[in-house]
Amino acid sequence: MQRKDCFVLKGNIIYAREDRTLAEQSEGYVVCEDGICAGVFDGIPEQYKNFPVTDYGDALIVPGMTDLHVHAPQYTFRGLGMDLELLDWLAAHTFPEEARYGELSYAKQAYPYFVEELRTSCTTRACVFATLHGEATVELMDELEASGLVSYVGKVNMDRNGGVNLCEESAEASAAATRDWLSAVKGRYAHTTPILTPRFTPCCSDELMRLLAGVQRETGLRVQSHLSENPSEIAWVKELVPEASCYGDAYALFDMLGSPDTPAVMAHCVYSDDAELALLKAHGTYIAHCPESNLNVSSGIAPVGKFLAKGLHVGLGSDVAGGSTLSMLRAMTLAVQVSKMYWRLVDNTVRPLTFADAFYLATLGGGRYFGKVGSFLPGYEFDALAVDDSSVKSMRRLSVTERAERMAYQECACRLVGKYVRGRKLV
Amino acid sequence: MQRKDCFVLKGNIIYAREDRTLAEQSEGYVVCEDGICAGVFDGIPEQYKNFPVTDYGDALIVPGMTDLHVHAPQYTFRGLGMDLELLDWLAAHTFPEEARYGELSYAKQAYPYFVEELRTSCTTRACVFATLHGEATVELMDELEASGLVSYVGKVNMDRNGGVNLCEESAEASAAATRDWLSAVKGRYAHTTPILTPRFTPCCSDELMRLLAGVQRETGLRVQSHLSENPSEIAWVKELVPEASCYGDAYALFDMLGSPDTPAVMAHCVYSDDAELALLKAHGTYIAHCPESNLNVSSGIAPVGKFLAKGLHVGLGSDVAGGSTLSMLRAMTLAVQVSKMYWRLVDNTVRPLTFADAFYLATLGGGRYFGKVGSFLPGYEFDALAVDDSSVKSMRRLSVTERAERMAYQECACRLVGKYVRGRKLV
Repeated sequence: MQRKDCFVLKGNIIYAREDRTLAEQSEGYVVCEDGICAGVFDGIPEQYKNFPVTDYGDALIVPGMTDLHVHAPQYTFRGLGMDLELLDWLAAHTFPEEARYGELSYAKQAYPYFVEELRTSCTTRACVFATLHGEATVELMDELEASGLVSYVGKVNMDRNGGVNLCEESAEASAAATRDWLSAVKGRYAHTTPILTPRFTPCCSDELMRLLAGVQRETGLRVQSHLSENPSEIAWVKELVPEASCYGDAYALFDMLGSPDTPAVMAHCVYSDDAELALLKAHGTYIAHCPESNLNVSSGIAPVGKFLAKGLHVGLGSDVAGGSTLSMLRAMTLAVQVSKMYWRLVDNTVRPLTFADAFYLATLGGGRYFGKVGSFLPGYEFDALAVDDSSVKSMRRLSVTERAERMAYQECACRLVGKYVRGRKLV
Repeated sequence: MQRKDCFVLKGNIIYAREDRTLAEQSEGYVVCEDGICAGVFDGIPEQYKNFPVTDYGDALIVPGMTDLHVHAPQYTFRGLGMDLELLDWLAAHTFPEEARYGELSYAKQAYPYFVEELRTSCTTRACVFATLHGEATVELMDELEASGLVSYVGKVNMDRNGGVNLCEESAEASAAATRDWLSAVKGRYAHTTPILTPRFTPCCSDELMRLLAGVQRETGLRVQSHLSENPSEIAWVKELVPEASCYGDAYALFDMLGSPDTPAVMAHCVYSDDAELALLKAHGTYIAHCPESNLNVSSGIAPVGKFLAKGLHVGLGSDVAGGSTLSMLRAMTLAVQVSKMYWRLVDNTVRPLTFADAFYLATLGGGRYFGKVGSFLPGYEFDALAVDDSSVKSMRRLSVTERAERMAYQECACRLVGKYVRGRKLV
């Protein structure tokens, strides 16, 4: 009898190990057994001989990628209005667009564009911000669940400094709306998990943070937010929460920075100093490094080499629409590129990222937030991509690792021809 | 009787003016008369009513783009080995690959890949480095001519500090090979022009520079080279030409920096100080800004905002394979992105580039090197692109300018559906 989610993919396989080195197997076989990776082999082992084989020919096969930070409602205006800094950009572009999701009909029209592009992208897992609107957030979660992607999704909380029609009336109203939303989605999904999402300290009063911490304690849910993205934002947080020793502490003070068992995702950390990084390490925080967004809204460059050297958890985020694209391949190349500028222009003691580092960040680095995800080591959940790079001509035979590097830099010339999440075929 | 190269294109038209502002005409008509642009109109003027019309529907129509700096032989290894700084990268990757073009058979296999991708890209004009090999350079020029693209192409000169099998024997041998190459191509092309191409000062002895200046005086040809790309390179030039007041002066001293009537293209200028910029301005030099290359080989960020404020000529270059892609759309977005980091990390008195600036640089800024090229103002040579952006979904009606910005950021989702150079259809 054929078992469900048991199969073999054949192709040129590459994946990251936990020590950030890459393993490759040309013309290899990667085995999925009950949705879990059984390993990579140069031939099909005896016990898997009866599994069906999909032969991807000369294509590359890589682990699925994790987008640790993306704003679903902002997808509609990605690549527009890229002339402003963070706080002005939020006011001019982001808040007016997010306000539209108060109409469920708008969400029903707009969210499918986002979900369909995410489904057909290299992303298999994502941590997603919705808007403050509960109904629209349920709509987004329904669509993500139907897509087969695995995600954390958060209804946003914001009770101060929002935009026109984009601010909750009070801390209590925001917390109550959060409880309503959590009731609506309780037990509803297999692949979609709610996550508490205070927008960022400037938009969340102390009282709201306290109430959300209460919800967190009751539910055990994780938290996602933004941290130390931009100098003006950081100065503002210092005024708003003067008792915090650093911006990160403005979350920790209210028990909203998570713990190693229930880790938070904090996007950016461009300006986190050693004390803040020590705080993040103690809390087991995952840093979502979003290089394109940091360029586009003129934030700066996060010292990812330093994060890795300190043993912090790091993955990549598209941060659409601070980032213009959902492409994790673009996030990989930009992560390498900006790390070189950090080395050149800011601190030449922080080594630039290698391609292997970037590949690790896009796959295993962010995947770990979802458990054993992001590698083809035995025991990992089976998320895989097959990528046809045949239109990228070469004059010599390249190693699988070289082809993977080129895939990242030549993303427009590559084509996703297969995609699997938890052993289920999406593309 | 129907005249050659007389036609009308219909679509959503955008182009830059000489003051770097953008003009747009939705559902407009751009007229080509004898290969020259007659202007953009909201209806077809009476005198052009008999011209054939190609209706590109809802597509964008933009001027052709100029790649002011690209290395044709390096196309084969673009997007590989992106872990080294300039001088190490030249030794490890570039010189060994360029040495292969000593075999004409290799050039005949490899150059068509480059030319075909350039033909089907957004680039209509290019300043191209070949290798030091005369025969292979003629091969490249033949192929570029056949493609319909317009280009300057240079056989490279290098008589010191080359690689294995990639160094000319002496200054005299290099100059003689240059004369042979120029004889071979004399009168051979309508769209392809030879340009003198001393690789850069570290690879060209004083004597070679003197001899090339002699060739320049005899032929009146233009010059292209590299300038002030990387700190180690600049320190090396200081040792090699101690009498020069700056790196740029190491060209000027030997009459190899051109003049306003015969302008040189100098790639990079990342570290050009005010004195060097004054020298470039006096000589009418065109700066080829290559943002992706400057990231990839860890050079730094060129202060393009400063160049523009000083009234210098600037355009964009892909600098393949320091850059990984021939895409001028990518060059546009990266130019904006790195200018924001220059503002944030280096000098906050230099304003970041706007999208209009980047569009100008990719079209008219670089196009001017070829004459009246890069705009749809009346009198410009007719280089045009039609771009289908219909797969980039939007929730509201966008202006043509907004769509053009999004085209640049969403390049993978856009499709070139028409391309014209000097009024001739290439795609």
